Amino acid sequence: MIIGVIGGETSSPGEGEVAYAVGFEAARRGHTLICGGRDGVMREACRGARDACGHTIGILPGDDRKGMNEYVEFPIVTGMGFARNTIIARTADALVAIGGRYGTLSEIAFALICEKPVAGVGSWELVSPTGEAAPVVPCSNATEAIDYCERNARGQGGI
Amino acid sequence: MIIGVIGGETSSPGEGEVAYAVGFEAARRGHTLICGGRDGVMREACRGARDACGHTIGILPGDDRKGMNEYVEFPIVTGMGFARNTIIARTADALVAIGGRYGTLSEIAFALICEKPVAGVGSWELVSPTGEAAPVVPCSNATEAIDYCERNARGQGGI
Amino acid sequence: MIIGVIGGETSSPGEGEVAYAVGFEAARRGHTLICGGRDGVMREACRGARDACGHTIGILPGDDRKGMNEYVEFPIVTGMGFARNTIIARTADALVAIGGRYGTLSEIAFALICEKPVAGVGSWELVSPTGEAAPVVPCSNATEAIDYCERNARGQGGI
Amino acid sequence: MIIGVIGGETSSPGEGEVAYAVGFEAARRGHTLICGGRDGVMREACRGARDACGHTIGILPGDDRKGMNEYVEFPIVTGMGFARNTIIARTADALVAIGGRYGTLSEIAFALICEKPVAGVGSWELVSPTGEAAPVVPCSNATEAIDYCERNARGQGGI
Repeated sequence: MIIGVIGGETSSPGEGEVAYAVGFEAARRGHTLICGGRDGVMREACRGARDACGHTIGILPGDDRKGMNEYVEFPIVTGMGFARNTIIARTADALVAIGGRYGTLSEIAFALICEKPVAGVGSWELVSPTGEAAPVVPCSNATEAIDYCERNARGQGGI
Repeated sequence: MIIGVIGGETSSPGEGEVAYAVGFEAARRGHTLICGGRDGVMREACRGARDACGHTIGILPGDDRKGMNEYVEFPIVTGMGFARNTIIARTADALVAIGGRYGTLSEIAFALICEKPVAGVGSWELVSPTGEAAPVVPCSNATEAIDYCERNARGQGGI
Repeated sequence: MIIGVIGGETSSPGEGEVAYAVGFEAARRGHTLICGGRDGVMREACRGARDACGHTIGILPGDDRKGMNEYVEFPIVTGMGFARNTIIARTADALVAIGGRYGTLSEIAFALICEKPVAGVGSWELVSPTGEAAPVVPCSNATEAIDYCERNARGQGGI
Repeated sequence: MIIGVIGGETSSPGEGEVAYAVGFEAARRGHTLICGGRDGVMREACRGARDACGHTIGILPGDDRKGMNEYVEFPIVTGMGFARNTIIARTADALVAIGGRYGTLSEIAFALICEKPVAGVGSWELVSPTGEAAPVVPCSNATEAIDYCERNARGQGGI
């Protein structure tokens, strides 16, 4: 399974710890990590995944590999700026949002369009125009978040 | 100025009325309308703008013009699915969100990344991970929304 | 009809004259011009179209309107770099290639994928792996090129 | 190094053999393979790379993993149609074109824009408007092609 980790390029120490744990736990269970490939939450999640011997994919916004973190194993260079966020949402089978600002919000929105499960650890709270909360399921730690991903991810029509 | 109108492909009668009024008012003041070019809020906004003799641009998600509404004057065919939402946010000088679901949420997020003003009429309420409300400014009608756009739009480094 | 003009950001005086004439002739016959919105061939084509009171759309590669030419009436800001070339090919009903380098080559390729007619004035000659020449039809002037576009464009499944 | 293999979704038996050999040789030398992830040349190149225990990345055009070949290890779902070709060109350090039609031509064009070396095995011959042949270097087999890639690839400004 491919698990997306989304969150800010700058992160608080607490967010960094959660990101590392999420990356580690995902990889320990045999999942591949996908993220935006840059600093902050993305870097810590990649570091965790690599420490657990997992694969990491970074979907980079720029025209080359500049700014990617050193724990990205497979850098994908899109040259599309933040439109690359749509690729993370489409590729992941499930996503974990950690903190985050507007970029993360856009990834959450795309993941929900694609009907992918999204676990949130200290992330956005959303109230839709019709008054329903959007289904970003709050989790308190990495294990809960990956459990939620595993239980709710659906096949993608692959081979 | 180019004003973006974002909202659902299906809309309630009330949302449709607001969308028509926003399109009409924007065009009456000489602005060009940009939107996703399809049904619901997008169609009503285009209809309003055309009734006020304004220009309308539709940024279409598909591979051809199928599904565009008949009030789109300039259809732009992207073939990129919902990644086309980033183009609406980048092109508009200011945006009005009317109701909407996850697609609209993604457009709001991209507009905020681009530091474009966003007026909301019965749209998403967002609380960021740090507890601040995101700056989607609630407006109660079309005039207020376009006033807000005009007061807060900034130049884009054009010619 | 929407006619795409593709060609280099720098152009020889001869290419500039052809581009102006193509823009003028397209607009004189009531067509809208689409191009990459920048300098060289794109600027001259837009200038010609505006002189004939036609509409011009510029599909810009950058994150804002910087670098657009002053004859673009409707700037579309994609933030996607040269991936924006796909949008020009998809949106146009027919295209005219004038000179050009690799960017133009990519637009020709995309236009041919989309089965859009492409008239070439002093542009690429292509021999496919199976030995056939690719259907970029050489034209000697603007009138011939627009004639070719009009005769060969097909509907796009719009409204 | 990441080596891109570009070519048609349908391939002749000879093209399939070359593609397999290119994938195998690239992986044997420790390179990662990137391609469009689908059938024909792409499938055979992935099969070769997996047989030599290499990694394979498929940049898919659709909205999910449907249509990917079974030798893609890391499927990247773009939802962008053929605009995904730009990502292959940007991500690869060097590319091998095998046969191919217009999609391959667009990838060659993008690779040349990005100043990536392109080896061609029975692929497009291009003559630019100024009469120069475009630098797609003809190679007669997989070893020659990968040799050319290794000698001419440049760093991408990664970490």
